[in-house]
Amino acid sequence: MGGDYGPPVVVPAALQALAKHDALHLVLVGDEKVLQKELQAHRAYDQARLTIHHTSQCVEMGESPAVALRTKKDSSMRVAINLVKEGKTQACVSAGNTGALMATARFVLKTLPGIDRPAIISTFPTRAGNKNMRMLDLGANVDCSVDNLFQFAVMGSVLASAVDNIANPTVCLLNIGEEDIKGNEQVKEAAQLLVSSKAINYIGYIEGDKLYSGQADVIVCDGFVGNVALKTSEGVASFIGQLIKEAFYSSLFAKLTAVLALPVIKSLIKRIDPDRYNGASLIGLKGIVIKSHGGAKVQAFAHAIEEAMIQVEKNVSQLIATKVEQLLKLS
Amino acid sequence: MGGDYGPPVVVPAALQALAKHDALHLVLVGDEKVLQKELQAHRAYDQARLTIHHTSQCVEMGESPAVALRTKKDSSMRVAINLVKEGKTQACVSAGNTGALMATARFVLKTLPGIDRPAIISTFPTRAGNKNMRMLDLGANVDCSVDNLFQFAVMGSVLASAVDNIANPTVCLLNIGEEDIKGNEQVKEAAQLLVSSKAINYIGYIEGDKLYSGQADVIVCDGFVGNVALKTSEGVASFIGQLIKEAFYSSLFAKLTAVLALPVIKSLIKRIDPDRYNGASLIGLKGIVIKSHGGAKVQAFAHAIEEAMIQVEKNVSQLIATKVEQLLKLS
Repeated sequence: MGGDYGPPVVVPAALQALAKHDALHLVLVGDEKVLQKELQAHRAYDQARLTIHHTSQCVEMGESPAVALRTKKDSSMRVAINLVKEGKTQACVSAGNTGALMATARFVLKTLPGIDRPAIISTFPTRAGNKNMRMLDLGANVDCSVDNLFQFAVMGSVLASAVDNIANPTVCLLNIGEEDIKGNEQVKEAAQLLVSSKAINYIGYIEGDKLYSGQADVIVCDGFVGNVALKTSEGVASFIGQLIKEAFYSSLFAKLTAVLALPVIKSLIKRIDPDRYNGASLIGLKGIVIKSHGGAKVQAFAHAIEEAMIQVEKNVSQLIATKVEQLLKLS
Repeated sequence: MGGDYGPPVVVPAALQALAKHDALHLVLVGDEKVLQKELQAHRAYDQARLTIHHTSQCVEMGESPAVALRTKKDSSMRVAINLVKEGKTQACVSAGNTGALMATARFVLKTLPGIDRPAIISTFPTRAGNKNMRMLDLGANVDCSVDNLFQFAVMGSVLASAVDNIANPTVCLLNIGEEDIKGNEQVKEAAQLLVSSKAINYIGYIEGDKLYSGQADVIVCDGFVGNVALKTSEGVASFIGQLIKEAFYSSLFAKLTAVLALPVIKSLIKRIDPDRYNGASLIGLKGIVIKSHGGAKVQAFAHAIEEAMIQVEKNVSQLIATKVEQLLKLS
């Protein structure tokens, strides 16, 4: 029911994912009437693999997580996470209120043993061809301890290894310089922990201008810094997009050029197609929860469903639990 | 002597600034032989307005600030700042090692009364036409107290008002959400201080994606977050630049389009010409110190000299001192 569009995006995305993946089963959690109406607008689908679970409430996009947790016990969000907890589904995908989703997921599912706090992790394109990068935390934890940062590194490393099939993912800490003396105390101490841990392929600090260089498979930072880096990136990309548009509208000649340049610009956008990168993970929980961008359209939401599928197939939560257990035994 | 290019950039930039501004006097601080040789490569200039102050040492770009401070007492950087302290010059412009410049400036000049820590502030273009934005701190202080953030807001506000001629500059705190409950404790408490201060036109939180929106004249954050935001912006811009280049090289047709699109792309680059934004200020000191980007070329370095000139003309340090004194009396 969440996101900027709700069922008109989620339902067709669900149908698209079902058509593509024979083994997939989906449960639509929300207002049955609304969901039925949306389903009727689409052609036939395999009813055995798509069911509706009715709920009477919705978490609003601007609602406080604490209020949602206390008063919205029959919300689509809460019930969808309950289904994961009860083992009736294996993952939850939502485009709803991020804060409420994180608070509810943490309350219902609990964190994995050895993980103090869950984090938000997402995938980004890099300058290095098809190589992707995963960064965490993107906003779940404003202040992070040394242990939090270390655990983020472990979780990011497991995810990159399992989902992106990278044998020994390179891990960096986001910092404001590459020299050892730079940075705040948490980052410096986390670096020491990571250097001495053989379980993580830690390769050092990385600065903001190298985020998308492809040097690191996983970049670790606290949620404040990660959120600023993520949103600043969106802001700069959109600023440059506006400038390009303005430049190509600036004269008749420029407009003619734009027509010619259109296929080139389209190929450009395809390289960093945001749809392909939709679907952040709430990682570190006893269960898989994927957060779609609120503004995601059908293709993008379908991608978030596929991210959930892969994480289920790879058994990501269990892999993280096992890795953390190994590390705790070693230390 | 500093920066990626040294005298081959600094000397012609100095000559350019002298030719443009009749009232300007410059002292080139550094190795006399090197500077003389560079000067000889250029045509005649007004020798009464350009003198050389010889020094025997240089601070290296990668040198530790502490080592530079202790062992480089006759470096061009140290002596240039000494000249400001002694009142022989009214500002120092350097493209050298940022950490060493900040440490030396703070040690020699000291902070203004009421200012606990100096900060690095710079100017950025925004989506709102010719409107600029100033952001601080960009990396001088990794951990900031509530008072530090408040003082940054005061200093940024004075600078925007004096240099950019904005009557009542709007000030925002960089945060990871716009709601009151978001953010870390320092940011939340700084917001309360700013809301209750009538001396600052504080308009609330701003998120990373709105940095360049033009909503705020001044954006305040700690140096870790500011540095990440700044460098991430550079990284994204350069990533998109690479993608555009690749797209226009992808086929013969695309290459032909590129030739046609060249003037359009040039007009685009002019809008956000990084040269025009070169020259960060080390603000909060008893004296004016401007840091040029290490990779600045002649035009950009000349712009940093002009930024110093304006700050001298507007008497920025004194304005900050007066504003802080007023605020201290009020509270």
